[in-house]
Amino acid sequence: MNWDYAQPVAIRFGKGRATEVNDVAASMELHNGLLVTTPSFVRNGQAQRLVDASNGMLTTVFSQFSPNPDVTEVDACATAIKANGCEFVVALGGGSAMDLAKAAASICMVDESIAQYHGTDKTLPGEHLPLIALPTTAGTGSEVTCVSVLTNRALGKKAPIVSDGFYPSVAIVDPELTYSVPPYVTACTGMDVLSQAIEGFWSKGHQPICDACALHAAKLVFQYLLIAAAHHDDEATYIEAREKMCEASIIAGLAFTLPKTTSSHACSFPLTNLYGIPHGEACALTLDYFARINQDAQGGRVQEFARALGFANASAMADAIYKLKASLGLRTDLRDLSLGDEQIAELVRISRHPNLYNNPVEISDDMLDAMYRSLAGIG
Amino acid sequence: MNWDYAQPVAIRFGKGRATEVNDVAASMELHNGLLVTTPSFVRNGQAQRLVDASNGMLTTVFSQFSPNPDVTEVDACATAIKANGCEFVVALGGGSAMDLAKAAASICMVDESIAQYHGTDKTLPGEHLPLIALPTTAGTGSEVTCVSVLTNRALGKKAPIVSDGFYPSVAIVDPELTYSVPPYVTACTGMDVLSQAIEGFWSKGHQPICDACALHAAKLVFQYLLIAAAHHDDEATYIEAREKMCEASIIAGLAFTLPKTTSSHACSFPLTNLYGIPHGEACALTLDYFARINQDAQGGRVQEFARALGFANASAMADAIYKLKASLGLRTDLRDLSLGDEQIAELVRISRHPNLYNNPVEISDDMLDAMYRSLAGIG
Ligand SMILES: NC(=O)c1ccc[n+]([C@@H]2O[C@H](COP(=O)([O-])OP(=O)(O)OC[C@H]3O[C@@H](n4cnc5c(N)ncnc54)[C@H](O)[C@@H]3O)[C@@H](O)[C@H]2O)c1
Ligand SMILES: NC(=O)c1ccc[n+]([C@@H]2O[C@H](COP(=O)([O-])OP(=O)(O)OC[C@H]3O[C@@H](n4cnc5c(N)ncnc54)[C@H](O)[C@@H]3O)[C@@H](O)[C@H]2O)c1
Ligand SMILES: [Zn+2]
Ligand SMILES: [Zn+2]
Repeated sequence: MNWDYAQPVAIRFGKGRATEVNDVAASMELHNGLLVTTPSFVRNGQAQRLVDASNGMLTTVFSQFSPNPDVTEVDACATAIKANGCEFVVALGGGSAMDLAKAAASICMVDESIAQYHGTDKTLPGEHLPLIALPTTAGTGSEVTCVSVLTNRALGKKAPIVSDGFYPSVAIVDPELTYSVPPYVTACTGMDVLSQAIEGFWSKGHQPICDACALHAAKLVFQYLLIAAAHHDDEATYIEAREKMCEASIIAGLAFTLPKTTSSHACSFPLTNLYGIPHGEACALTLDYFARINQDAQGGRVQEFARALGFANASAMADAIYKLKASLGLRTDLRDLSLGDEQIAELVRISRHPNLYNNPVEISDDMLDAMYRSLAGIG
Repeated sequence: MNWDYAQPVAIRFGKGRATEVNDVAASMELHNGLLVTTPSFVRNGQAQRLVDASNGMLTTVFSQFSPNPDVTEVDACATAIKANGCEFVVALGGGSAMDLAKAAASICMVDESIAQYHGTDKTLPGEHLPLIALPTTAGTGSEVTCVSVLTNRALGKKAPIVSDGFYPSVAIVDPELTYSVPPYVTACTGMDVLSQAIEGFWSKGHQPICDACALHAAKLVFQYLLIAAAHHDDEATYIEAREKMCEASIIAGLAFTLPKTTSSHACSFPLTNLYGIPHGEACALTLDYFARINQDAQGGRVQEFARALGFANASAMADAIYKLKASLGLRTDLRDLSLGDEQIAELVRISRHPNLYNNPVEISDDMLDAMYRSLAGIG
């Protein structure tokens, strides 16, 4: 089996290390940076604290964007970068902030709209500004991936763009940044970690180093997500769980960025786009279904993976995924949406996303139709 | 827990990929390279095949060095690089060839001897020529590490030098290059893989990504080393085992290069230096001993590691290490050397190498003395 591996992102992990942004920028001889962050971090003062600590290095703040950022918001950020002559970008936020920052740090180098590269075959030029990524959710792993997931609301399209220029230069993972994530967002983003680990493992593009990372990350999610998503009296346990979920998140990022995700991520795009289901919850919705479909694929690799996680077999792992969703209060079906034949057909159609072809078992429209009908309760 | 991770080596893995040297050099716009390889590869024509395939890119071959290369041999290689105006280095060989090439590719940039940096506190300058590493043993993992292990025979000293400049730019791991490794060398180098994985895991400098790699690599060694080291009729099984050992080797390299190795590697240096025991066999000699010493260290992590490998506990893993050495025909004691008190004292003294302090349990001279006496059979 042939495989290629590269992992160009330097990682700094640890509580309280967010302040090392300065240190990192200084070591790269960077002076004038733009901070991409969500409105909530502007409101709660965290963005200002980073700016204050930056000794004037962070000159501009950009926060005009929404979760599942739109291509027009990327273009607006690129305009802000150019207008202020910024030479590097810092992203402080979840996948939405990081993905917007990645795309903006590349598209600002040319006089084009990112829309031209979204859902098309066009390859982004390699040139880009250096990016320092500080994730604030234990979720996407975007801080170590070459992927930016964007939405074009005008066209009703959500899709990832892949570019070598999207790798951040440095990821600073400070678990303290995730303490404020509400339980529901913790649950959603945590299930994204699990989906990415498992899908990276069974992807047709699987490879050994990523396999090892997938196993490590999935093990941590089964052990720590319920604790991290609960309100806890026992603070030490809770803080440990937050840290372990951050570890799982970045290592799941390593697990899937080269192999790419598969069926559950493909199906998540219409679920998020049409019904507003958050990314991680949308991925998790079909993860146990595909675990059963894929259980005997690839000469038993998925069974082995499940056993290495301590389950009797892949079907027991699928049961555990279902149980975890239920315990977290996440949706396990689509019954509340009262979907009809037309909506099911639309879901099937839009799920036929390139990622679907990374799944180890070929997924037919009939399979998708049966799955969505069963989830919708319209057998 | 705080940790930093970086892995700057691009990896290309797969049968027959040795010929991609050209492609790699061309993509880096490099034209005039020096090939470091062992005399055996010069004799068997493999070196010439690489030179012939290089379209004139490999202009110089350097092969005047011995296993456990000497500092004077590094200096001679640096002189050859300078004399021929080479702008990159290719290493084709085991750890000895790669380590010599790493050190030469750095020291050739300055007018000094590598001896000044060997076993001293002096830091090597960061500048270096790009290196493309092609391992021919499934052993050291040197193709992805920032370590070069050298010997100063004049001073009777063997020690690693660590430098960020030692990371190869690209590692090309072609399992076919290892088919010709004789069974005994396969056994020795394979036990080096196991030692590096296990020591990387329990090192005081352990960290999560390396933990995941350590587990993956160790699992493969227990599964495939005996097959790779045997003569097999069943060729497909044998070829699979060779490939899996190459996978284990490079992933164990990732597992230890940041955490560093510990007690077994520390003890290996005098065993190799004074008694000529090959590196991997020397490491393995004490690995089960230290597995027992360390079994309850770090809050049970070593026990967990052993269980994840399918053993009942760390002590059962130690038993399995002993059994594996015996099955491979490697030494399990030092009785044949007829060591006396003086030699034991010397072994204890020289084992007090910096790596010893990475061991999770503090190792006293009394412990080393008891261990070496027991190995020597002079209770
Ligand atoms: N690039 C990749 O590799 C990759 C991988 C998976 C998903 N994604 C994409 O990333 C996006 C999802 O990212 P996400 O799951 O991190 O969610 P997000 O970034 O959209 O954030 C979710 C919500 O949580 C809030 N939030 C974030 N951090 C917080 C904190 N510390 N405290 C309080 N509130 C906080 C945000 O303001 C937002 O309202 C989606 O667009 C998804 O498709 C990208
Ligand atoms: N840099 C690191 O990270 C690192 C780690 C561990 C050990 N080391 C060092 O590496 C050296 C050991 O390297 P090694 O174990 O790979 O052995 P080696 O390079 O010394 O090779 C051992 C013997 O096998 C022969 N050989 C190698 N490949 C062959 C092939 N394909 N077919 C036939 N013969 C072959 C060599 O010519 C040599 O005689 C030691 O000096 C050790 O201390 C370095
Ligand atoms: Zn995702
Ligand atoms: Zn070694």
